[in-house]
Amino acid sequence: MPTFTAEELRDAGTRLFRACDAPEEDARLVAGELVEASLMGLDSHGVARYPMYVAQALDGTIRPGAPIRILRETAGTAIVDCGGNFGIVAGHRMAEIVAEKARGPGIACAVSRRCNHVGRLGAFPQRLARDGFFAFATVNSSRHGHFVSPWGGREGRLATNPLAWAAPGEGTPVVMDMSTSMIAEGKIRILMQEGAQLPEGCILDAEGEPSTDPRKFYGPPRGTILPFGSPRLGYKGFGLGLMVEILGSALAGVPLDPPGAKSSYVNGLFLLAIDTEAFGESRVFRGLLQELFDYVSSSPPAPGTEGVVLPGSLDLRTRETRSREGIPVAEETWRLIVEAGRSAGVAL
Amino acid sequence: MPTFTAEELRDAGTRLFRACDAPEEDARLVAGELVEASLMGLDSHGVARYPMYVAQALDGTIRPGAPIRILRETAGTAIVDCGGNFGIVAGHRMAEIVAEKARGPGIACAVSRRCNHVGRLGAFPQRLARDGFFAFATVNSSRHGHFVSPWGGREGRLATNPLAWAAPGEGTPVVMDMSTSMIAEGKIRILMQEGAQLPEGCILDAEGEPSTDPRKFYGPPRGTILPFGSPRLGYKGFGLGLMVEILGSALAGVPLDPPGAKSSYVNGLFLLAIDTEAFGESRVFRGLLQELFDYVSSSPPAPGTEGVVLPGSLDLRTRETRSREGIPVAEETWRLIVEAGRSAGVAL
Repeated sequence: MPTFTAEELRDAGTRLFRACDAPEEDARLVAGELVEASLMGLDSHGVARYPMYVAQALDGTIRPGAPIRILRETAGTAIVDCGGNFGIVAGHRMAEIVAEKARGPGIACAVSRRCNHVGRLGAFPQRLARDGFFAFATVNSSRHGHFVSPWGGREGRLATNPLAWAAPGEGTPVVMDMSTSMIAEGKIRILMQEGAQLPEGCILDAEGEPSTDPRKFYGPPRGTILPFGSPRLGYKGFGLGLMVEILGSALAGVPLDPPGAKSSYVNGLFLLAIDTEAFGESRVFRGLLQELFDYVSSSPPAPGTEGVVLPGSLDLRTRETRSREGIPVAEETWRLIVEAGRSAGVAL
Repeated sequence: MPTFTAEELRDAGTRLFRACDAPEEDARLVAGELVEASLMGLDSHGVARYPMYVAQALDGTIRPGAPIRILRETAGTAIVDCGGNFGIVAGHRMAEIVAEKARGPGIACAVSRRCNHVGRLGAFPQRLARDGFFAFATVNSSRHGHFVSPWGGREGRLATNPLAWAAPGEGTPVVMDMSTSMIAEGKIRILMQEGAQLPEGCILDAEGEPSTDPRKFYGPPRGTILPFGSPRLGYKGFGLGLMVEILGSALAGVPLDPPGAKSSYVNGLFLLAIDTEAFGESRVFRGLLQELFDYVSSSPPAPGTEGVVLPGSLDLRTRETRSREGIPVAEETWRLIVEAGRSAGVAL
């Protein structure tokens, strides 16, 4: 597989998004975050998204440079109209808003409207944790992404609805980023292309019967992904996914799309920050957190493992390796990126 | 199994806690919440706790009537010293504090110190949701309850660390209340007493090997409970449990107990409320939520199910049945309650 340096991929992305009329700073931010996800091994949220973002910018779904405005606010809350700008640009602006607000009452949250794909969700709490906050984030998707069945149901009613948190220890923040479903749609596609089977308990076919055949998910007719915890405890994952849906839609005042209609949003982002200074000296909080991380990590390894894995630490390890050795990009992915460049008038 | 009316059990509990010097109002509140859990079928958090609460009140762990004070606060946050009062009394006081604060900035949270067993966690967000808030709660336990292994480890480092949320639809609030482990300790004990096996993927033995034998959990040497999502996705449950631990201890400024030491707390409660009025008319929010609940519930039943189960709805169904037919209490449980009465000077 061809490999690229992070710098090469950032340059390519920046040029692509500049050619779609994104302001220089925004183009750099979006490319930078996608490359960051690629560095961390989260390829489905990495540079493989370049072609989608370019296509959406060219067809008007993404409106580069669109103003991002607070529609309604209180001292600790905001509804943010992202105006169809890149979701990554919007998410970072929302993180700034939440951070600024949280310095007042000690806690604040924001919800989005007209928000496009936000990329790696963990990026926003991670940024807030670097600034000393405990941060929490969720993101839902419009009806078009409702692949996940509710507990007891056989038709999709939720997206894979991830949630994330981050907390500042004494080193790099610990970042947890998880979907509330059994498997990501992208992983099912990869297994289907490889002719492989899924682990048990991940999907239902269109009749609602459990299956391990990825083709049963795509159909037609389409099956569903089961909520996290299935087959036995899927009601928990469903409950978490439903919370993410509430925070991303109802709280933001966004109604369900009518069936078949084009949605006014791709993602509904909820961001929350707690200013740990409100509870005492942040130095003390960081110390207590580090003590906790050390205590948890001191559990001796279970057989067959390399020991305790703190949330996000494997991603950080991949980041180190790929920073050193380059980022592998599948040939087909690179071909699509080059093609996207052509459609935007950029030779890569 | 003998059955009792809710009223009979509430009276018994109120008399027990009055005899432990709890003020009338607090005695009623604690008994009422435990009976509420019994009504909902959550027996491990119901009247089976009467003997433990009485014993703790008599040995000074619980200090009935102790003042509950705000130690430190900002417009949207509070550290609440629960003074060793009943955890249920403290949790309700914290819910009042959070509700009052959230009316200002639109969002607020509180953390506890010196908090005893809070009972059913969902009770607090449920109360807040009745008042129109979206609410979220977590509760950790002191080191003595650390039965749950971190992902990759073989010694316990977290408790079953539940989290809960509640949201007001047009009817009864929807309440989600889940542990972040594969199984509750109490359920392992029941299966052991019945001579039954555990489902796969719930526990490790003391060497860190998977087991389905409940006796391998109790040892000695003791095994651990696996985090929710195990065996394949336990890193997610671990990440959720770790968040609960952070919110219940580090954020509250509470250090880890030294090994073997008596802890200054039983539970560390984190409560968060979002005033939905900050985002628009609460009537609109309730309408959107109801629309969402209806949409999710409209997924046709998967084979072998009765259809979509919204969080908490099975508990509500049990509540209806038990309100009508009485609450079954195991003979041994009732014997222990009567004995607790004797130790407190109350004839039941």
